[in-house]
Order: sequence, then structure tokens, then C-alpha cells
Amino acid sequence: MAREPKRLGEFDLIAKYFAPLAKGEPGAFDLTDDAAILTPTPGMDLVVTTDAIVAGVHFLPEDPADTIAQKALRVNLSDLAAKGAKPRAYLMTAAFPRDTDNSWLKAFALGLKGDQKRFGLALIGGDTVATPGPLTLGVTAIGEVGRGKMLTRAGAKVGDDIWVTGTIGDAALGLKALNGDALGLDDGQLRHVIERYRVPEPRLAFGRGLVGLAHACLDISDGLIADLGHVSDVSAVAIEIEATAVPLSPAAGAVVDGAFVSLAELLTAGDDYELAFAAPTSARARLTALAARTRTKATRIGTARKGKGVAALDAAGAPLPLARAGYVHF
Amino acid sequence: MAREPKRLGEFDLIAKYFAPLAKGEPGAFDLTDDAAILTPTPGMDLVVTTDAIVAGVHFLPEDPADTIAQKALRVNLSDLAAKGAKPRAYLMTAAFPRDTDNSWLKAFALGLKGDQKRFGLALIGGDTVATPGPLTLGVTAIGEVGRGKMLTRAGAKVGDDIWVTGTIGDAALGLKALNGDALGLDDGQLRHVIERYRVPEPRLAFGRGLVGLAHACLDISDGLIADLGHVSDVSAVAIEIEATAVPLSPAAGAVVDGAFVSLAELLTAGDDYELAFAAPTSARARLTALAARTRTKATRIGTARKGKGVAALDAAGAPLPLARAGYVHF
Repeated sequence: MAREPKRLGEFDLIAKYFAPLAKGEPGAFDLTDDAAILTPTPGMDLVVTTDAIVAGVHFLPEDPADTIAQKALRVNLSDLAAKGAKPRAYLMTAAFPRDTDNSWLKAFALGLKGDQKRFGLALIGGDTVATPGPLTLGVTAIGEVGRGKMLTRAGAKVGDDIWVTGTIGDAALGLKALNGDALGLDDGQLRHVIERYRVPEPRLAFGRGLVGLAHACLDISDGLIADLGHVSDVSAVAIEIEATAVPLSPAAGAVVDGAFVSLAELLTAGDDYELAFAAPTSARARLTALAARTRTKATRIGTARKGKGVAALDAAGAPLPLARAGYVHF
Repeated sequence: MAREPKRLGEFDLIAKYFAPLAKGEPGAFDLTDDAAILTPTPGMDLVVTTDAIVAGVHFLPEDPADTIAQKALRVNLSDLAAKGAKPRAYLMTAAFPRDTDNSWLKAFALGLKGDQKRFGLALIGGDTVATPGPLTLGVTAIGEVGRGKMLTRAGAKVGDDIWVTGTIGDAALGLKALNGDALGLDDGQLRHVIERYRVPEPRLAFGRGLVGLAHACLDISDGLIADLGHVSDVSAVAIEIEATAVPLSPAAGAVVDGAFVSLAELLTAGDDYELAFAAPTSARARLTALAARTRTKATRIGTARKGKGVAALDAAGAPLPLARAGYVHF
């Protein structure tokens, strides 16, 4: 076998690593054409979202290649989950530093391949370019939802329960750990929070089940409080959270309000990629059943009230002081 | 009026400069939601394409902000044109250097606004992130074409005419001029070739007219010869070009085969964003009428033959030596 060159031309790159990811999707033409065809399913709306991640901003340059690929895809799948959509296809623009080598690209493509299989979608287009700057990945994800059924951020009503999936604040701890901050976690806990930072879990099955049950939904990318602030703004309700009801992982529970990490910090830190949603109290039993059926933790953490803004109340009912509302990238 | 801060948070940025670009497209929710809804037009296929551009690679960092925005959008619209699709919507990921200021962003958004109006599409999603590296813009463009009618790179037949729109090689001269190379062009010619580099013209009306007339089509981004090579590969035909038939602008005509620029160089240089297509000889009259109706120059430059590969023949019928097949970014 011939030795592979260390760097590849764009066409070789696409043919070798990315074209196989388009197999089984005839409209993608094995990525050999200028564009892909997507034939819409009758009666369905398309749900389209785009998010970019940059090395050193949204992930660490030394993170494993496969988890970087997964994160680029999953932050977009998380948006589809929050809209109740079923993933169908995605496109990716990848600006690779010039010294990106074959073994890294192979691991990157394997990360995408595994997630495509797991979440049931195919690559239908892409563009690979060289950059003198950091690795930058843009994904556009396309899903489908019944006509007029997409969950939005609007629609939360006074009296609705506020829920979240999973646990809050793990990814922030993972980033701290990767940055070398002392946290007082044991090895298993460290692995857990680092995994949560690197590889978010899009709550797709649960999100699809929310269609017809939830009044409003979004995914938490900029911090629980900041993102609930978006629901509050767009739905024109106040949101009151019981801070002690917010679900924490055993790792976060072990360190919260200790020497290194406050609860307020976990509630305002980014990268959770859990769903936050508002639903009528009449939906409680069905939501509990949905959580059981999709093996997704779901926790009631508060209530929508008349007014505006988001408050997190401590055990005594006093508002928790929040240093910042959430993470702002720019 | 309050003075504007020099830098904006992500939400402010989106609200101020990008949300107005989503007006009139209800499924875009003024960019306040996680995703957009796109309701497909019955009987139409969606055509989806993505391309990214990086400062210092695909445009110059000091190019005007509005032309950078236009180029990011138009290189994608050119792909839709080549597929016979009508543009409908686009999404953009923008990784801005941290020192990007308000006046630059304002000009950038105006560039998008003008092109949206001209080409009839709306922004339906986006993500703005900060980067320590160069400005990097990714666009996903979505168009529509009649079910099963998309033009592809396959389908060129032995005996077909090979055509191109517009003129070839201007953008390459524009880039040389911007890089300070001596070309021997007068001021008007310099302005023309620089404009062609900065602001490509997507041949949308002409491309839509090709549906049902052309057997195969693509847009020329990596150089006429390299891109015809893709048609040759995918259609399994040889393509023979009469080099002297390739249309040149007055500017290119003035300098070609002079001291600084060879014809071979213009045939293999990137960034033309013209359409190259194969059509049966029986379509000649209709293609000429289409060109007149859409005010698009279209020129027959060669023939598809049995075999493989692309050759450019000089006036004596001898193959022109080509130093490289086309521009490879990576």
C-alpha cells in the first residue's frame, strides 16, 4: 500500500473522509455535486438550524477529534430536539488548520459516522477549507416535524410548570477540570463532567414526545437562567425557579457550594444542552411517562408567573444573587 | 441618542444587525428561536448547498465589508444557479474577530440586505461567534426546483456542446491586482477585474432557464478546466475545449499572453463563478434565446467526446500545456 501524504487536497479530503458519510442518501450524490436534493416529506415542516464552534472558544484544541466532531453535530441536534423535530440531514463547513493530519481527520470522520448512525441522519453537503486560524466548524442541521407543530420559545403560560431534562452545570465543571482548576472531584466524577463538556446528549426522543405536551421549549446552551430568560421574554411571563430543585449530577452535588463552585455558578454556566420547557400542570403524568419511556430524566424546577424576568429562589424563598445571566460568547 | 458600544454581545449583535434581515419570513421568528421553520412548496424539491469563505484565503481582510458579505452569499447562490434552483432562504455562521466594530458590521449587514432583495431570499438562521483567528463565514443556501428536475454534473453526452456564461479569468486578474502584481491594465479595467473578484454574479435567471435544456451543469469556482474535469468524471465523457473560443473580458483580452498573464493561467484560475454546462446541439437556438432573454452572455467553447479528461486545444489544434488543473484550497 502506498504511504498516504500527510496533507490532502480538498477533493481528496472530501472523497476519502466525507463522501462515505453521505452514503445511503441518494440526494447527496456522494458529495460530488454542487448541491444536494432534499425531497420534503408530505405534510411535514422542515426545521433548520445552524451553529458554529471554534477551537479555544467552544472546545479545546486538544480535545479528541471524534468528540469535536460529535460536539459540532450535537449542539445542532440539541436545537432540533428542543423544537420537537426528527433529524434528517446535515451540512458541515470545516475550516481546518493547515497542519491537520490524516489520522486526526480519520478520527473526526469516525466521530461523525457514529453519531449519524445513532441519531439517524446523513451528511448531504459540506465544504472543507484551509484556515491560518483555529479549527472552525459550522453545521446546518435539518429536521422534520408535523406541519405547524414545531415547539417554539413562545407560548409559556402563567401557571405552567417549568421543567428541565438531565442535570445542570456538569459541562461547566468539565471545562474547569480541563482548564486545570481544582474542584475536589474523584476520578470517576472528573471523567463524567469532562464527557458532559465534550459530548452533549441531544434529547431527541424526549423532545419529539414534547410536541403536543409542552407550551414552549428551548435547549440550554448559554446557561439555565439566561436561556429561561429567552422563554420569559418571548412568552411574556416571569419564571420563578426553586434553586434547590434544579437537578445536579452526583459530581456536581459533591462540590456545589463547597470551596470552589457555587450553585449560582452552575445555574448560569453554558454548554448544558439540556431541554428547558414550560408545560401545563395537567401534563405532569404524561411527561413523567414520556421521561420513563425515553429514559430521560425530567425534573420540575419552577413555575411561570405574571410579570417578567427570571428569579432563582433559595430554600428560604429569597432570590439567589446571580453574578451574570449566562455566557456571552462575543 | 446614546453612544453605541464598540463591541456587542451576541444577542445584541443578532438583534441589531441580523434580525432585520429575517423580516418578512415568519418561519424565521426574527432569529429569536433555536431554529426556523421552512414549509416546503408542494411539488418542489429543495436544493441545499453550503460554502465557507475565510479572510486571507477566499477574500482579502481589507476588502469592503459589504462585498465580503455579498461574496459569502453569492458563492452559494452560484451553486443554486448551477442546479437550476430558485433561491428561497439562507443561514449564516459568522466567526468574527474580536475587534470587529459596529460600523463594519453595519456595512456587512447592508451588503446582505441588498443581495437578499435583489435575489429574493431571506436569512432564516445564523450563529455569531468570536474567533481569535481570521473572519470565517459559512453560508447554507436553500433553493427550490421542480421535483426531479435539478441539474447535476452527470448527464453530459457524447456530442453535446460545452458552454460557459460570462467571461473567464477576470477574478484571477482581480486578485493579482489586489496583491499588487503588475498587469498593464488601465484604471477602468482594474476596477472591473477587482469587482469580479470581490462580487461574483450568480447566473440565477439563466440557470433556471437551463432546466430541461442542459444535460449537465456546474459553477466554475476552482477554474474552468478543473471544474469541467468534474463534469467529465461524473458524466464519463471527454471534454475538448477550443481555448481561443473561451470568452474573455476586454480587460483579460488586453493582457492575455502578454508579459504577465497566459491564457492557460486564466483557464485554470479560480473564482469565476460562471456556469459551465453541456447541452445537445438541438438546444442551440433555445439557449441563444435564453441568453438574450436573461441578458446573460453564453458562449459555446467545445464538445463532449468519447473518452475521459479535459483538453484545451490552441488555434492549431494542439493541446495547450496546463501547469495545474485548477485551484485547490487545502
